[in-house]
Amino acid sequence: MGKVRLDVSMSLDGFIAGPDATLEAPLGVNGLDLHDWVFGLKTFRETHGMGEGGLENRDDEIVAESLASTGAVIMGRKMFSGGAGPWEDDPNAAAWWGDEPPFGVSVFVLTHHPRATEHKTGGTTFVFVTDGIESALGQARDAAGDKDVLVAGGADVAQQYLRAGLLDELQVHLAPVFLGGGTRLFDGIAPDSAGLVPERVVAATPSVTHLRYSVRV
Amino acid sequence: MGKVRLDVSMSLDGFIAGPDATLEAPLGVNGLDLHDWVFGLKTFRETHGMGEGGLENRDDEIVAESLASTGAVIMGRKMFSGGAGPWEDDPNAAAWWGDEPPFGVSVFVLTHHPRATEHKTGGTTFVFVTDGIESALGQARDAAGDKDVLVAGGADVAQQYLRAGLLDELQVHLAPVFLGGGTRLFDGIAPDSAGLVPERVVAATPSVTHLRYSVRV
Repeated sequence: MGKVRLDVSMSLDGFIAGPDATLEAPLGVNGLDLHDWVFGLKTFRETHGMGEGGLENRDDEIVAESLASTGAVIMGRKMFSGGAGPWEDDPNAAAWWGDEPPFGVSVFVLTHHPRATEHKTGGTTFVFVTDGIESALGQARDAAGDKDVLVAGGADVAQQYLRAGLLDELQVHLAPVFLGGGTRLFDGIAPDSAGLVPERVVAATPSVTHLRYSVRV
Repeated sequence: MGKVRLDVSMSLDGFIAGPDATLEAPLGVNGLDLHDWVFGLKTFRETHGMGEGGLENRDDEIVAESLASTGAVIMGRKMFSGGAGPWEDDPNAAAWWGDEPPFGVSVFVLTHHPRATEHKTGGTTFVFVTDGIESALGQARDAAGDKDVLVAGGADVAQQYLRAGLLDELQVHLAPVFLGGGTRLFDGIAPDSAGLVPERVVAATPSVTHLRYSVRV
C-alpha cells in the first residue's frame, strides 16, 4: 500500500494562496508567485499541455518523482472549481482544470453535493465524494493500488487529513516570497496531532526549498 | 559595516512562541520545543552558563557563526522582560535574562519608557531606546563596529524592521513542530516590502532546518 502524501507550495509566511481570489486569479493576489519555481520545468510543461522543452533540473526531478508515485488525488470542492470566492457556493461549478487536467488519475473531490463522475481527456476522472474524508481516502487507496494517494489541497482539506492523523508524509515546497495575507496552509494544527520527522531537504535552485517530513501520529 | 540580521527559530506553522505565555513559560505552551535543537549544543551551553560539553555538530557551527559575527543586539521590551503577558505593562520589569545574559555585547531594548542603562556580568549591557527603530539601529551599528547587528525579536520588532526595509538577512531555524497558536513571526508582511533570495539551506540533523535569505528591498 502506498503512502498518503500532502504536496503543496507555501510562502515563507505560510500561505498557499494570496488574498482576494477571483475566478480569473484563483490563487489570489501574487498567489502565482508560489509556483514560479514550477512553471518552467519539463515535467510541468508536459503534463500541462505546454509542449516540449523546459528545465530538467533537481526541481524537475522532484516534480517527476511525485507524479510517478501518485496513483490517486484528493482535493476539496473549491480547489476543483477554482479556489475560494463567490462562485464556491455553486455546487455545479465546472472544473477549473479544463478538458485535459494534469492529473491523469482518479481525483476524488470532497463536496456536500452529489454529482455524476466526470471523465476527462488524458486519464483524469473526477469522482465526487459526499460522505467525508475517510470515505474519500478509502476510495482513493483502492484507485491508487500500490501507489500513493496525493492530498492536493486546499488548506481546509489538508488540515482535516492532518488533524485526523491520516497523512503519512508532508512535502512543502517553500517559495521565497511573502504573500502577506490569504489562505494559510497550517492553521489551528494542535501540536499533538502530528509529530514531524524531517526526511529530506532539497535546495538545489534559489527558486524553492523542498521540505519533506514523515508524520508520526 | 556589518549586516543587519534577523535570526530566529520558527515552527513549521509559523510561530515563534506558543499560546498562553506566562512569566514561568514566556514562550507559551510548547514554545520551548522550537529550541530543542539548540539546548544540547556546545556553544549554547557555554554562553548560557551550562558548563563544558555539548554537541559539536553542524548546528553548533551555525550558532557559533552567528554569535561570532554579532556585535550588537536589538530586541523588544517584551523579549527583554520575558515574553508577552500581564507583566508586559510594567515598564520597570526586570530583565528576564538574569545577571549573566548570554549576549556579551550591547543589547538595545525598544521601549516607550526611559530607563537607565544596565551593565551585566559577561559583557552584556542593556541600553533602553525610546525614539524608535531607526535610532536603535543607529546606536547598534555604532556599537557593533564592523560586526553585524542582530535583531533578536520578538515578532513585532522583527516585522517593524522588515517592513521598514532595514534587514539585510533573515535566518530562520525551522523546527519540525506545530505549535497551533501563539505569536506568528511573519504577519501582515506586504509582498513588496521584501524580496527574498535564498542564500543557504542547512539540514544536517533532523532537529532543525536552517534557512538563510538575503533581503532585497
